[in-house]
Amino acid sequence: MIIVLDIDAATEELERDLHDRGYVVHILKGDDHILLYVMGDTTELESRALNAYDGVKNVLRTKDPYRYVNRSLFADRPLRIGKKPFSEMKPFIIAGPCAVESREQIVKIAEKVASAGAHALRGGAFKPRTSPHAFQGLEREGLMHLRKAADAFDLFAVSEIMDKEDLPFFEEHVDIIQVGARNMQNHDLLKALGKAKKPILLKRGFANTVEEWLLSAEYLIMHGNRDVILCERGIRTFDSATRHTLDLNGMLYAKQITELPVIVDPSHAAGDYRLVEGLSKASIAAGADGLMIEVHNNPFQAFSDGAQSLKPKRFEKLMKAIAVYTE
Amino acid sequence: MIIVLDIDAATEELERDLHDRGYVVHILKGDDHILLYVMGDTTELESRALNAYDGVKNVLRTKDPYRYVNRSLFADRPLRIGKKPFSEMKPFIIAGPCAVESREQIVKIAEKVASAGAHALRGGAFKPRTSPHAFQGLEREGLMHLRKAADAFDLFAVSEIMDKEDLPFFEEHVDIIQVGARNMQNHDLLKALGKAKKPILLKRGFANTVEEWLLSAEYLIMHGNRDVILCERGIRTFDSATRHTLDLNGMLYAKQITELPVIVDPSHAAGDYRLVEGLSKASIAAGADGLMIEVHNNPFQAFSDGAQSLKPKRFEKLMKAIAVYTE
Amino acid sequence: MIIVLDIDAATEELERDLHDRGYVVHILKGDDHILLYVMGDTTELESRALNAYDGVKNVLRTKDPYRYVNRSLFADRPLRIGKKPFSEMKPFIIAGPCAVESREQIVKIAEKVASAGAHALRGGAFKPRTSPHAFQGLEREGLMHLRKAADAFDLFAVSEIMDKEDLPFFEEHVDIIQVGARNMQNHDLLKALGKAKKPILLKRGFANTVEEWLLSAEYLIMHGNRDVILCERGIRTFDSATRHTLDLNGMLYAKQITELPVIVDPSHAAGDYRLVEGLSKASIAAGADGLMIEVHNNPFQAFSDGAQSLKPKRFEKLMKAIAVYTE
Amino acid sequence: MIIVLDIDAATEELERDLHDRGYVVHILKGDDHILLYVMGDTTELESRALNAYDGVKNVLRTKDPYRYVNRSLFADRPLRIGKKPFSEMKPFIIAGPCAVESREQIVKIAEKVASAGAHALRGGAFKPRTSPHAFQGLEREGLMHLRKAADAFDLFAVSEIMDKEDLPFFEEHVDIIQVGARNMQNHDLLKALGKAKKPILLKRGFANTVEEWLLSAEYLIMHGNRDVILCERGIRTFDSATRHTLDLNGMLYAKQITELPVIVDPSHAAGDYRLVEGLSKASIAAGADGLMIEVHNNPFQAFSDGAQSLKPKRFEKLMKAIAVYTE
Repeated sequence: MIIVLDIDAATEELERDLHDRGYVVHILKGDDHILLYVMGDTTELESRALNAYDGVKNVLRTKDPYRYVNRSLFADRPLRIGKKPFSEMKPFIIAGPCAVESREQIVKIAEKVASAGAHALRGGAFKPRTSPHAFQGLEREGLMHLRKAADAFDLFAVSEIMDKEDLPFFEEHVDIIQVGARNMQNHDLLKALGKAKKPILLKRGFANTVEEWLLSAEYLIMHGNRDVILCERGIRTFDSATRHTLDLNGMLYAKQITELPVIVDPSHAAGDYRLVEGLSKASIAAGADGLMIEVHNNPFQAFSDGAQSLKPKRFEKLMKAIAVYTE
Repeated sequence: MIIVLDIDAATEELERDLHDRGYVVHILKGDDHILLYVMGDTTELESRALNAYDGVKNVLRTKDPYRYVNRSLFADRPLRIGKKPFSEMKPFIIAGPCAVESREQIVKIAEKVASAGAHALRGGAFKPRTSPHAFQGLEREGLMHLRKAADAFDLFAVSEIMDKEDLPFFEEHVDIIQVGARNMQNHDLLKALGKAKKPILLKRGFANTVEEWLLSAEYLIMHGNRDVILCERGIRTFDSATRHTLDLNGMLYAKQITELPVIVDPSHAAGDYRLVEGLSKASIAAGADGLMIEVHNNPFQAFSDGAQSLKPKRFEKLMKAIAVYTE
Repeated sequence: MIIVLDIDAATEELERDLHDRGYVVHILKGDDHILLYVMGDTTELESRALNAYDGVKNVLRTKDPYRYVNRSLFADRPLRIGKKPFSEMKPFIIAGPCAVESREQIVKIAEKVASAGAHALRGGAFKPRTSPHAFQGLEREGLMHLRKAADAFDLFAVSEIMDKEDLPFFEEHVDIIQVGARNMQNHDLLKALGKAKKPILLKRGFANTVEEWLLSAEYLIMHGNRDVILCERGIRTFDSATRHTLDLNGMLYAKQITELPVIVDPSHAAGDYRLVEGLSKASIAAGADGLMIEVHNNPFQAFSDGAQSLKPKRFEKLMKAIAVYTE
Repeated sequence: MIIVLDIDAATEELERDLHDRGYVVHILKGDDHILLYVMGDTTELESRALNAYDGVKNVLRTKDPYRYVNRSLFADRPLRIGKKPFSEMKPFIIAGPCAVESREQIVKIAEKVASAGAHALRGGAFKPRTSPHAFQGLEREGLMHLRKAADAFDLFAVSEIMDKEDLPFFEEHVDIIQVGARNMQNHDLLKALGKAKKPILLKRGFANTVEEWLLSAEYLIMHGNRDVILCERGIRTFDSATRHTLDLNGMLYAKQITELPVIVDPSHAAGDYRLVEGLSKASIAAGADGLMIEVHNNPFQAFSDGAQSLKPKRFEKLMKAIAVYTE
């Protein structure tokens, strides 16, 4: 870490405090400022706190803030979903409705997405809704519908957890536990999921930086769960013409840092089914490891997210289009 | 609610679906589009879902999405903190360190902020930290230090809850329970706090709209807790020169909709102690109902947020400056 | 246009004003608000102005704000670059350095990009630099170097204009005149370019909505120049990990409204050469009509934008990779 | 400037290139990276270009990118508007309509704002409109109406220039020449205004950082005009509930760097007249050197920006409210 101070700053206090914390500090006097070069593991040193010292102009972190996500994580034990290695299923396709609405609905959709070639079935049972007046999900009953529909068509089951109390139930009945965008920094939930025996699908918050996203993955790994799949799902920008803005820069940047797989959710990124095909192709072409796509047999009557759901026919067409990009 | 369709759109399906849900629909044929005017309580109708129907060009909500926050909430029973009416303490000043670091630290700061005229003492015991490698708080022990320090100087105690399991403990030991920015849309936590017997300080998420913020307050009220204080604490924008950007537009806009009190946290909005005085005066001048300010006796050695904490002397000076604006 | 008013609003003044401007107004009384439905060409009516009337709660535009960009523009006379139809050159590839630095430099690069299959050579001669202390371009001399280098290798020449005084010179020496992101709303420049005899490459401002971008194209067409190529080049968001964020949502959304071609500049969107290949493939896969890519023979010593420039070898590899997506 | 490289990076090429440009370079080997500390005037060195060298991980600028705006600019010759020192008119109040619509209109408004205590009259004659279908201004005739109305009530005249060709006309007829938000980075215009004989009011672009804003001021000063007044007018964020978001963080941050006066335009920041009073008080309380406020005698029929204009009565009330904050 490098701390830049004014040329006439008194550095004794800062030096002493750093020394007290066990750091080795080198000093370099420049033409119009002083540099303190702090050696050792500075992961726990806060740049902002150092800015509080008199005379500090700038702090530069020379090391990444990560200890785990930037390591080789799967060298000894590759990521598996159920018993299948993830690497043999690329691009990994998760498809299904936003929410499980009934047994009939989820079975009907499961059949369609399985026959089109998806690997996993999604379906929300506990729904994080912005308004308390919106449909909140079928909860445990919904999760059981999802499990049975997935089993009937040999699909993995993916669903979002909101409350750590439900973890044992999720561990028993789903294959991948999803953390939603709104809970990406719910640290108590992350700590609990660090103990989970199933892989975690960690969605990026719609206004979180890639660094914050990776630090949330760091929580999971540090607390014991290395099986993390990252999911880019669009960010919030100044233009509200579309619901969110898919951030492929972020996906590519994350892949430069970590070897954790990164998949893309084009449905939430678009908010409009007409954009989903274009964004899906773009994601795969850019190198995404998979997709999570909302599919509904009757989008008009969907309890939520109807406008961004593909009908099964359109999903089938998309799967064929993507095949070209991955041969 | 108004639905705008292309002039040649087939509206039968949409009309029937709306009718099935119990809405009365009026149709108006314009020069180059058709309008459906939907009467009744459309709070639960999703604009985005309606966009999925063929021919729909636009959906306009004519009513607010709120049922509670926009009502007269305190007419019969005014908001109280402990036994004191909130309205008699305006501007309501909460001050203290980001985190409780030790018994000595919190007592020393409590003394200072009390003598400068603050009403309440803040201090985090459970800390939501972006990195798992950062200080995570003294937890229950920290909360007890806070309670005792507050009592010693006749201050109210304010602290952030992260896990609903801790609710009974918080209800017993703090006067105002804070929901942090990162948990503003943690709906399970909100539902639990709807049952809490203490007022809730609901911080705005750093990338949440005013509407989403008010809908989170709506969760609290709908689940039983009408005693909500809103707190604007800066939003995330394209300019990272300062940590966040204080959004007084948002504060004023919220006050047009709700009579819930809105206070401001200039410390997080600034991220730099040198900006705190200016933003504090601005907030009070604009009509904020109070402030939440980070004060630390030794900002350089603070475990977190040192750079944005005021030293007690500076806080005292600020309190005097504000007095001018509120006579 | 629909104007929503409170149920007890006095609408006479508003009705009269609208009537005075020649609009036909229908009134509909709902359960708790009044609707005014304004018929006629409301393109010139400002939503914000209507909000100033007492009792107005909301204004909904039922028609697009465009008169030209949403029309069939090329039915009778397809877009041509020089004498070649644009449609026969898809994806249309523009490549070259950020700035023309010398005759030798631009010739060397022209040879490389031509042999790799590019259609056009880019090179800035007049540079819009954020800092007045940065290199400002070789101006007219630079433009002549560009022209000659392009001719030598049978490429079209593309360069950015900043001052309408230079228009005759640009019309004589380049094949496509570029409007940079910072000048997207320089309306005097747009009006002048409406008279230009060459196609315009209109870059999207880094913080402009798609609607604003299309309205700038509308300026060009309304003032006489229908030959517009739109260029998405990344927007500014809260995450500064990469220079900008490529907005493929915006590109796809623009293509839903207009038949003007939309190309992508992945170099500025990335700000880092390592992301350019991924973003280029993504853009073509999503349906972009072309790419504008920065290529430099010696990125390290480039006067500007070195970090985002590809070396010729890497550009050649990219061209082959893209071919797969367009066969 | 500090360049951080991987511990095993080959630094010869980079060192040689820096040496060739005349910099003195010190090398420091750390525990897991190498630092190059570049001494000398690095204002012209681009961080991004240095990132292109193999092995470079990070570049830290240790000096501000400014040569002028951060200097003591008015020590020898204080800023004057006409013949009056600016410092004697704080807070400096500019008021008037968005656009000059007729001679009668501007005279009527001039009378009102003068009697309420404003120092200067604003009124657009050349209007930068997003849509080519919107009112574009009365141009030179409008500017003459403004001049005469200002003279009649002893006010200074302020108006926006869009085209450098009009500079002689502006120099003759206005007292302060305004650069609008959309032209903040129109560098050819800035260079021309560097030669202007009148003070420049430089509005911040709605998506420009404070650093970019100050660098645009740097253009003006470097080209000869030191009389610059900065104007914060709201930035674009993810929340569109209000037109823009007033950025007082940015105003305070700018004031830490420069002694150029900074005023605030609460009208554009709000987009809604009901927020203007709150934001005005906030700005003055935070330390703004003045305000620019839209006032219209008949906001409903204003050709532009009606919704954010105050009626004269309300403006008068605001002037009294502000007086309290500045006594």
